[in-house]
Amino acid sequence: MDLEKTNRTELSELGEFGLIDLLTRNISLENKSSLYGVGDDAAVIDNKGRLTLVSTDLLVEGVHFDLSYTPLRHLGYKAAVANISDIVAMNGIARQLLVGLSVSNRFPVEALEELYAGIRQACKVYHVDLVGGDTTSSVRGLFLSVTIVGEVDPDEVVYRHTAHENDLVCVSGDLGGAYMGLLLLEREKAAFQGDPNLQPDLEGFDYILERQLKPEPRTDIIRLLKEAHVKPTAMIDISDGLGSEILHICSGSKLGCRIYEDKIPIDPTTINMAGVFGISPWTAALNGGEDYELLFTIDQKDFEKARSIPGISIIGHMTELSQGANLVTGDEQLVEITAQGWNALRRNLKLINIVPNSKFRI
Amino acid sequence: MDLEKTNRTELSELGEFGLIDLLTRNISLENKSSLYGVGDDAAVIDNKGRLTLVSTDLLVEGVHFDLSYTPLRHLGYKAAVANISDIVAMNGIARQLLVGLSVSNRFPVEALEELYAGIRQACKVYHVDLVGGDTTSSVRGLFLSVTIVGEVDPDEVVYRHTAHENDLVCVSGDLGGAYMGLLLLEREKAAFQGDPNLQPDLEGFDYILERQLKPEPRTDIIRLLKEAHVKPTAMIDISDGLGSEILHICSGSKLGCRIYEDKIPIDPTTINMAGVFGISPWTAALNGGEDYELLFTIDQKDFEKARSIPGISIIGHMTELSQGANLVTGDEQLVEITAQGWNALRRNLKLINIVPNSKFRI
Repeated sequence: MDLEKTNRTELSELGEFGLIDLLTRNISLENKSSLYGVGDDAAVIDNKGRLTLVSTDLLVEGVHFDLSYTPLRHLGYKAAVANISDIVAMNGIARQLLVGLSVSNRFPVEALEELYAGIRQACKVYHVDLVGGDTTSSVRGLFLSVTIVGEVDPDEVVYRHTAHENDLVCVSGDLGGAYMGLLLLEREKAAFQGDPNLQPDLEGFDYILERQLKPEPRTDIIRLLKEAHVKPTAMIDISDGLGSEILHICSGSKLGCRIYEDKIPIDPTTINMAGVFGISPWTAALNGGEDYELLFTIDQKDFEKARSIPGISIIGHMTELSQGANLVTGDEQLVEITAQGWNALRRNLKLINIVPNSKFRI
Repeated sequence: MDLEKTNRTELSELGEFGLIDLLTRNISLENKSSLYGVGDDAAVIDNKGRLTLVSTDLLVEGVHFDLSYTPLRHLGYKAAVANISDIVAMNGIARQLLVGLSVSNRFPVEALEELYAGIRQACKVYHVDLVGGDTTSSVRGLFLSVTIVGEVDPDEVVYRHTAHENDLVCVSGDLGGAYMGLLLLEREKAAFQGDPNLQPDLEGFDYILERQLKPEPRTDIIRLLKEAHVKPTAMIDISDGLGSEILHICSGSKLGCRIYEDKIPIDPTTINMAGVFGISPWTAALNGGEDYELLFTIDQKDFEKARSIPGISIIGHMTELSQGANLVTGDEQLVEITAQGWNALRRNLKLINIVPNSKFRI
């Protein structure tokens, strides 16, 4: 088709989620083994009882990462982690990983070895086997596709669309840190561009930098929940921000929710840095993304058990659909939670090759 | 790392296969379910007896396809087919497919619908379920990653590395056509650039154009082999050309081979077009790629059975390693078969948006 002459609907008119809906509408599953397709953190495939989970992600230079401050080793590690996190979000165990790599000849072999070193390190830490992939050239830039395969028992799998009214909404760890780390790195990059002799001023911000550059999937939370005999009723990992993710659970489960702003866990470093940048730390938590924490719902009967697990915050509850998805602010105002999505498009970082100065050697 | 200052080994020094070897060396598999990792058409995962096959491919605009003469619907169809073919090459059945799509805002929504229409059509024809994916933006161009999941019984799976000395080498269909189709399309594109009023001269070349624009995986050959009770001893699909693929079987099986030039099946249209371009049709067959035919070895005892299957040519046999991998030319000269690889890099098409004029509406 001619890209110029046909009816033209801009991608930005639809947004990421609208586009996905459009492209995947009316898909019917033909094979008995295809238990669950598009619309969760991973596809679910039945293998005579044991379920296989499969998920794939694309990471694009200048959109998802900026090599001027993202060391390739960290990029590889984070790419693997983001995918492992998708399996964790299904309450599963990640087992195998495949890597598709497309690079221009700007990259020497040594750079790709660094990238793979990071991927392999994440695989080692999380007991995942690197079992395949594809390597090709690109006209420009680096593209990385990661596919993860995991497994889970049928009675253990947790979807997004299975929350119930009055379930409690929980989140692991703290939110917004990865986004503040990104803003800090971008500020220092801009300063460096203004004066190349300037040394990056990253002292005291280790925590948010590590949140951005070296996130970890919350396999520990999955284990703690199992040990406490708490099975989430719905779950998703936070890659796009709390706001987007809770809306996925709401729309999937055909429910509303009420999230209490003052219950959202935010680290002091994140709050401080948000103050420096003059933005609300709750904005960072709701829309920042890349924290790779788990957002999940539990039955109210599990309240005491969940409360006793370290690193879990109860931040709200599910309501009936007609009540909508709302944030209750500190002064008890109700604010509708809206989808951001297409974060990758909004970010769209410009690439410049400067020496990264990360302290988080992995 | 600094891409400029460190020791720099150019990608072209290693080549595609050297790079893959380097990046995946010393990978040990930790999970019991990881039966076979890097080095075949798909990874093999054990699910309590039944094997899951997973493979992933990246397709890059300007490298693997040129949208000036590849309709997006065909691109989607071909991307799915190339991956289904990887499962076929393991003697398996493709079941699920995941699509990663990265596009710049040059593409309207309608273009992506066309692309998906092609993917979905291939899924329908080959009974594969589209179960997931990722959609994101790119700074420039279109990147497509396709991951395929299939299944096979443990006693049916066929690897690349399991050929035996004296096994017969077989190939399905005919070779070189897809490459000649590509050369024809590029010639017409160049003519169009010289004179935009010129109509493409594609009359009489339907066969090679279809080989390039709408290849099909050889699920029929797998079925015929099963019906004839012939299980290949080793198998691979021809994506990079007969030369590269037979070398994969040789190196995996630690054997040599002897391939007879005059036994290689080549369609008359391919031969005619090769004459027009002044290249040897055998060069097209050996190095052209994208035919998605099956290259496989069989035990000599299966000779009569294999010979009776339509669409299979016996083109040579496996030898001991020390004899090397050789082509026996029409005048009985021995020519060493050498790896081409990194075809994608060599091609590196330049993108221009003109209206494709394909007759192969799918």
